[in-house]
Amino acid sequence: MSALHFSRVVIVGVGLIGGSLALSLKRAGVVGTVVGVGRSAASLEKAKTLGVIDEAAESLAEAARGASLIVLCAPVAQNFALLHALEPHLQPGTIVTDAGSTKSDVIMAAKTALGDKAAQFVPAHPIAGRELHGVEAALNDLYLGKKVVMCPLQENSRADVAAVRAMWESTGAEVHVMSAVQHDAVFASVSHLPHVLSYALVAQVANAEDAALKLDFAGGGFRDFTRIAASSPEMWRDICVANKEALLREISTYEAVLGHLKAQIKAGDGAALERIFARASETRLKWGAARAATHNVEP
Amino acid sequence: MSALHFSRVVIVGVGLIGGSLALSLKRAGVVGTVVGVGRSAASLEKAKTLGVIDEAAESLAEAARGASLIVLCAPVAQNFALLHALEPHLQPGTIVTDAGSTKSDVIMAAKTALGDKAAQFVPAHPIAGRELHGVEAALNDLYLGKKVVMCPLQENSRADVAAVRAMWESTGAEVHVMSAVQHDAVFASVSHLPHVLSYALVAQVANAEDAALKLDFAGGGFRDFTRIAASSPEMWRDICVANKEALLREISTYEAVLGHLKAQIKAGDGAALERIFARASETRLKWGAARAATHNVEP
Repeated sequence: MSALHFSRVVIVGVGLIGGSLALSLKRAGVVGTVVGVGRSAASLEKAKTLGVIDEAAESLAEAARGASLIVLCAPVAQNFALLHALEPHLQPGTIVTDAGSTKSDVIMAAKTALGDKAAQFVPAHPIAGRELHGVEAALNDLYLGKKVVMCPLQENSRADVAAVRAMWESTGAEVHVMSAVQHDAVFASVSHLPHVLSYALVAQVANAEDAALKLDFAGGGFRDFTRIAASSPEMWRDICVANKEALLREISTYEAVLGHLKAQIKAGDGAALERIFARASETRLKWGAARAATHNVEP
Repeated sequence: MSALHFSRVVIVGVGLIGGSLALSLKRAGVVGTVVGVGRSAASLEKAKTLGVIDEAAESLAEAARGASLIVLCAPVAQNFALLHALEPHLQPGTIVTDAGSTKSDVIMAAKTALGDKAAQFVPAHPIAGRELHGVEAALNDLYLGKKVVMCPLQENSRADVAAVRAMWESTGAEVHVMSAVQHDAVFASVSHLPHVLSYALVAQVANAEDAALKLDFAGGGFRDFTRIAASSPEMWRDICVANKEALLREISTYEAVLGHLKAQIKAGDGAALERIFARASETRLKWGAARAATHNVEP
């Protein structure tokens, strides 16, 4: 047995993210029993058949009994209700953490729903995903080489923060710490905004009178730009609402940048357009090359 | 010798697009001599060494002598000057065509620069590209299975239109005919607009105070969304200016769609967001699946 060991881990929401965490912890040999909690009994049954979880609990209350670690992996809008339901059953010594893409909102939810027990909640966000979702898409190496951002609370004990960090490190992930505000601003910019922009473009094309013709001639650029518009509508609905403030700021800035480009196109100012495009192109090429070198992935 | 044969083909601008056309025509055995014209003598010399062209001409005037076909493959803003320089040397019986991403502008340029000889100009646009550019990136099968849009003029002879069509079909491409206005509207929507949007996002991130931090945490979604922001700044500067009217209309519509999403995010209207995201997601998944089935490419 490893020095790191969680005897009973509860995964709330056993889909791609929660399922991959369960498999990764099993692979690392740091977990005793994995208990799954979810909205759909059929989906929990599938998770059990696939060996992702060992037990399916009927309720969060039942699951929480004797838990060493509870990980919230459901769409982020459910976190408040989940934490509220958990509070009366949350035992001292149990660590609660999450895997959501937004952090300020879940911290607010934890402080409101858990009261003094909020000290037991250690917020985290693994930066990993696949185009597929659901427990069938879960992988035991999804987090290998990926980044995890932790946004510990002042109230958290050092031991709990260290345990959550060690848990993620056991999956092969690289842990970074930042404030929740910083986290939300960064991901609003490089993740949430691009998703909104990509959904918006597909919506525009789909609503055009000549949508069929347009889609027929859409090529590789459209394919890459819109790949994220195939993401889970429920998950992204929740993220947009949960990270509203930071996302609205990014959208406003984007409107200004686009308005600026529009004015230059209107003026036929090729030199100004080329300057902006060249700087963007250089930034993107450098980023791709650096990423390919570090992570051994496509640029 | 094939029934289709061009004894002397002039490629103006021997980069990815022009070079790939030269190689494809050679592979199909439908060309005698390929003559290259370009701004850089060194690049033409490289094209010759690579076997992409057989001869490098000093000038368009020299190249045009005895040409069966002249193909304009330079960035689209150069077309007017090229056609203007060509006019006095354009012999009867020579067909002129192009490979530009915008069509209304090049037709205007041809009518102005060529006068009566505009009847010899048959506009076309192959829908193909790679992330790499320059003659080293040229492939003899770049157009295989790709679409080519032709926007013939009323003045064109049937024989010339048929010859340009046959030329593209010999490369393995599939030819479609539409009006220049329709072409420009379609590509403004599914190609030019996404390029502008992608450049704008990278510009926004690159100009942020915490650009380094943001780029450090940018993941797969950012990668796909911004891949086209690595495209040639010169080429896209020209396209934006050349297809200004259609592109500005698409940008205005996009601003409205984004404004609508912004209002829903502000209002926290999750149900409305989910409806739009779900419709976009469904459209994108269907498009990807249909494309994968037809073209044997990734969705």
